[in-house]
Amino acid sequence: MTGPEQKLEPKDLAATGRNLLAFAAEMYPICRSITGKGIRQTLETIQRQIPLELHHVNSGTQVFDWEVPQEWNIKDAYIKDAAGNRVVDFQKHNLHVLNYSSPVHQTLSLTELRPHLHTIPEHADWIPYRTSYYKRDWGFCLTHNQLLSLQEGNYEVRIDSTLEDGQLTYGECFLPGTLKDEVLISVHACHPSLANDNLSGLTVATALAAMLRERTLRYSYRFLFIPGTIGAITWLARNRDAAKRVCHGLVLTCVGDAGGFHYKKSRRGDAEIDRAMAQVLKHCGEPSEILEFSPYGYDERQYCSPGFNLPVGCLMRSVWGSFPEYHTSADNLDFIRPEPLARSLGLCAAAVDILEKNRRYLNQNPCCEPQLGKRNLYRATGGGSIHEEINARLWVLNFSDGEHSLLDIAERSGLPFTAISSAAELLATNGLLVDIS
Amino acid sequence: MTGPEQKLEPKDLAATGRNLLAFAAEMYPICRSITGKGIRQTLETIQRQIPLELHHVNSGTQVFDWEVPQEWNIKDAYIKDAAGNRVVDFQKHNLHVLNYSSPVHQTLSLTELRPHLHTIPEHADWIPYRTSYYKRDWGFCLTHNQLLSLQEGNYEVRIDSTLEDGQLTYGECFLPGTLKDEVLISVHACHPSLANDNLSGLTVATALAAMLRERTLRYSYRFLFIPGTIGAITWLARNRDAAKRVCHGLVLTCVGDAGGFHYKKSRRGDAEIDRAMAQVLKHCGEPSEILEFSPYGYDERQYCSPGFNLPVGCLMRSVWGSFPEYHTSADNLDFIRPEPLARSLGLCAAAVDILEKNRRYLNQNPCCEPQLGKRNLYRATGGGSIHEEINARLWVLNFSDGEHSLLDIAERSGLPFTAISSAAELLATNGLLVDIS
Amino acid sequence: MTGPEQKLEPKDLAATGRNLLAFAAEMYPICRSITGKGIRQTLETIQRQIPLELHHVNSGTQVFDWEVPQEWNIKDAYIKDAAGNRVVDFQKHNLHVLNYSSPVHQTLSLTELRPHLHTIPEHADWIPYRTSYYKRDWGFCLTHNQLLSLQEGNYEVRIDSTLEDGQLTYGECFLPGTLKDEVLISVHACHPSLANDNLSGLTVATALAAMLRERTLRYSYRFLFIPGTIGAITWLARNRDAAKRVCHGLVLTCVGDAGGFHYKKSRRGDAEIDRAMAQVLKHCGEPSEILEFSPYGYDERQYCSPGFNLPVGCLMRSVWGSFPEYHTSADNLDFIRPEPLARSLGLCAAAVDILEKNRRYLNQNPCCEPQLGKRNLYRATGGGSIHEEINARLWVLNFSDGEHSLLDIAERSGLPFTAISSAAELLATNGLLVDIS
Repeated sequence: MTGPEQKLEPKDLAATGRNLLAFAAEMYPICRSITGKGIRQTLETIQRQIPLELHHVNSGTQVFDWEVPQEWNIKDAYIKDAAGNRVVDFQKHNLHVLNYSSPVHQTLSLTELRPHLHTIPEHADWIPYRTSYYKRDWGFCLTHNQLLSLQEGNYEVRIDSTLEDGQLTYGECFLPGTLKDEVLISVHACHPSLANDNLSGLTVATALAAMLRERTLRYSYRFLFIPGTIGAITWLARNRDAAKRVCHGLVLTCVGDAGGFHYKKSRRGDAEIDRAMAQVLKHCGEPSEILEFSPYGYDERQYCSPGFNLPVGCLMRSVWGSFPEYHTSADNLDFIRPEPLARSLGLCAAAVDILEKNRRYLNQNPCCEPQLGKRNLYRATGGGSIHEEINARLWVLNFSDGEHSLLDIAERSGLPFTAISSAAELLATNGLLVDIS
Repeated sequence: MTGPEQKLEPKDLAATGRNLLAFAAEMYPICRSITGKGIRQTLETIQRQIPLELHHVNSGTQVFDWEVPQEWNIKDAYIKDAAGNRVVDFQKHNLHVLNYSSPVHQTLSLTELRPHLHTIPEHADWIPYRTSYYKRDWGFCLTHNQLLSLQEGNYEVRIDSTLEDGQLTYGECFLPGTLKDEVLISVHACHPSLANDNLSGLTVATALAAMLRERTLRYSYRFLFIPGTIGAITWLARNRDAAKRVCHGLVLTCVGDAGGFHYKKSRRGDAEIDRAMAQVLKHCGEPSEILEFSPYGYDERQYCSPGFNLPVGCLMRSVWGSFPEYHTSADNLDFIRPEPLARSLGLCAAAVDILEKNRRYLNQNPCCEPQLGKRNLYRATGGGSIHEEINARLWVLNFSDGEHSLLDIAERSGLPFTAISSAAELLATNGLLVDIS
Repeated sequence: MTGPEQKLEPKDLAATGRNLLAFAAEMYPICRSITGKGIRQTLETIQRQIPLELHHVNSGTQVFDWEVPQEWNIKDAYIKDAAGNRVVDFQKHNLHVLNYSSPVHQTLSLTELRPHLHTIPEHADWIPYRTSYYKRDWGFCLTHNQLLSLQEGNYEVRIDSTLEDGQLTYGECFLPGTLKDEVLISVHACHPSLANDNLSGLTVATALAAMLRERTLRYSYRFLFIPGTIGAITWLARNRDAAKRVCHGLVLTCVGDAGGFHYKKSRRGDAEIDRAMAQVLKHCGEPSEILEFSPYGYDERQYCSPGFNLPVGCLMRSVWGSFPEYHTSADNLDFIRPEPLARSLGLCAAAVDILEKNRRYLNQNPCCEPQLGKRNLYRATGGGSIHEEINARLWVLNFSDGEHSLLDIAERSGLPFTAISSAAELLATNGLLVDIS
């Protein structure tokens, strides 16, 4: 993979994207849930790419207003018709079982069974993804066509699952930087065979961590691979000091499909991460949209709860819930594509680059412009127009007054942060600026 | 009439509107002016609906830069042609006399009479409404067609009016609430036979007062039925302490025609009443427009003078001066309609509802979301979408941080205040919020 | 010329414009540069119109990060072909020589000569304007057609110029006012035969100074006629105290062409001059556009450097660099027109008028409106509409609360500053306002 300072070139993009997709494919078949072997196996797969510390929290542990739930594991599940045929079979697709279903083994008439069956009539070939974490229940998810083909009669239903005291597991990859201030990258790792939501997030976060490991970092970076909601709540409850050190944060979800980018701002709305994301999206060459914060969504719900109010936004391509494949079997490995995955990674790297390089400088010649020409920093012949790089130098000099950061200057000038940042480095090398951040 | 918490349903709307129009019709024939028997008779009519205290202020009383004018009363007025026919007759329409005309009885040639005649050439069948309160004058208002039909010759003109020391009268209906802080509703009651301006305001204000009487109120409410300009100035001069207690206020005028709503903001521009009106207009289902404050208009001119700068806005349907019927005989009982009257009342009631219910709450579980599911405040099966009422709960929880009122939350969320307010009540009942307002 | 308080009427416009154009024509042939006889001769021409003090600064003087350059003078320059014909001739157009060229006298092949030749291929009949102030170089500017007609062979090139220690010269016209606070008007006077850039600026600034001399002024006015960049830097380095007194400032350039107005805001963005210019442009009856500050441009670059950050904007018609004639021989006396020049002058005068008259008043009757009618400041007969002048009085009264200036009131009301200002004068005369600025 390329470093965060380099643009991902078309060739690298293709190769990077294929690697990301291959990694997603490796994790796709695992039946994950918020607890149990599935998520553990997933985290172990990630551990082979980056240094990931696994944390295990006992069932029943109180975390704020919540309690860590029991561990759920499942071996098999099916509905058999009177002839003994598996008409719905967990072995064929792990979405077929209502995630976190209690064990059951009964014979029921179709009428009795019906309330336990979930389908999507509008997409009659897709299996929905449904869960019942916090209310004991069992059920099956099937295509609507499967449902329509079921005859009256008795069915043997079996869910060979266990719900027992055990542990909730999450993974944490910490990359120390010069500062104790932290950047938080959080992805949920609890969804079963769903690709965009959120194998795309897992693969991009893993690749970003691998990329940042190779680099000297100003900020410390903390990557969380956690079960949704309860994982974020558990981490926050156990890491209140670390939470206080979070200066910038991103939740990544649905970053592999072919849609344009969406960035949902943090609750603060004007945090540096919000501005950094707006900056990279503006210059990324893809369609993008900035969304205001709302308290419904992914784990930014918890990070942005009023008791924490962390500056954590959420990066998506297509917005969860807004595309028909969302939370269905159609969110599969064909729905995510190599290039969008690679471009999502590049975007995250570019945002990190802004956070790393966003400093305040002080112009050492604040009265009038310094004479750039004598330092070979200006064109020689006057009368024509100047280029972006000289323009960027003028912007940096004029606004390096101690009040404006490079990101401020990029925003005000309309020039890309990269142009402003390069200009600042060059001017600092020439003694015209000093870093006061 | 329905209570302010209930929506006015189609059936109620029709009945409510008919009642409002009938009440307007009762007051329509009275020849009102800023002083005299006409306005007194009008106030007595209103007194039959709500407890209204009448105040009488002697002519000559100094009120700020003004002086309470003499009392004007009129018995008859006409222009007779040489044959003794009443070619202009006050008995046929009280707009025919320049309001506040001095008495006169003379015989004049048409040429001598002409400067005393007011018409509207563009609407040749309408009688204009003209006044001369602060300069002694007399005149007649007639249709342009009437004017054209006048032959050369002598005319007997008579205005049987009196201008004598007496009293200026206004009415005040005070509804005490838990708080001493007041909401001011002000309507001018000085216009003669003009329906939209301002019998519509009188009827809606009367009905609103009747509605609020039935209710336990947080704020105290003060309804003023006053002659325009001089009435507001007189009230402010005599009630400087009460003026200081005004937290929110509305002037109502032209609220009965079929046009969409217009709300003119208070001088402050961001007062709670301005935001409450914007909120109810956004969700009222009728076209509406918010207008910036300007110092010309109705009695908000006085309430918003810089020495008071009260948070008082002005609600209208069609904006005074912008519709051709304004200040003419065409602003009659056909120009105002039952349903618009009833909807104006409903809108005022909805705004009052916001003022009454707009509080600040404190989330008792500020760190992460509280577990709504275990309190049956969330959906049971996960994976699908949530509904507005759950969404409203999340908004209220997230922003009940001590800094945001329910109106703030409604504005930021885009959800109707009613949804936010209901969510807050439910969450408070469940112990998840406490009222800190 | 008309006074700044009067509108320039069509007839005056034409006469004024012809005078301005005639003055530009007088200065057009002079070969100016940043130093030397050309700029001195130009300043002496201006000195015949207004009292202008010439300042002479020795070559080699350190001015901030810069050094005053040597004095450049030129007698002749040409390229002769083998037959001895002057194929490029400075006597025909002073743009033919690269401005500030070192002396040269050589015979060169076309190939050797080629790197010293500047043309504009897209406009094959125009001569470009090019300079080399800060790097020793020599060159010729010619039409692209001239270049194409040059045959292979040897050419005698001669530039009979001198670059010697001498002086940099600039002119300063100071008009004292009641206040020590200053308004700065700055124009660059270093460009050779280019009409819009910047003979238009020189003529308009000269005429504005002549106009203001006739007037009693509140502010003091300082007009600078200086070589671009180095002149502004030199003045700032030698006048740090005067610079601190600058409250408002304008750079004038390209104000004579037929395009609409452009005003580039000061670095502060909300300075009074920025608001005054927006106000006059809004009501000037010509198309106009407000541009955000950027650190590239004319001498506002220096005035707005962070060590000074003066409230200085830049008025243009067509924006330098955006029209094809810019910095070419096509920016000639046909490119600037009498009426645009005169209207530019009128606009500057109107802006000065705002600065002079923008005060804060205090309403002496802040509680309710004062009774304008008894002072004959209102209409006598009520019921119809009011006119702009009464409306302006109401705006001034309502917002003369000690916090709002007349410009604030003009902005908020949408009425022209002239209407607001006249209303304030009338109300003050009637004792209803007092000046507290």
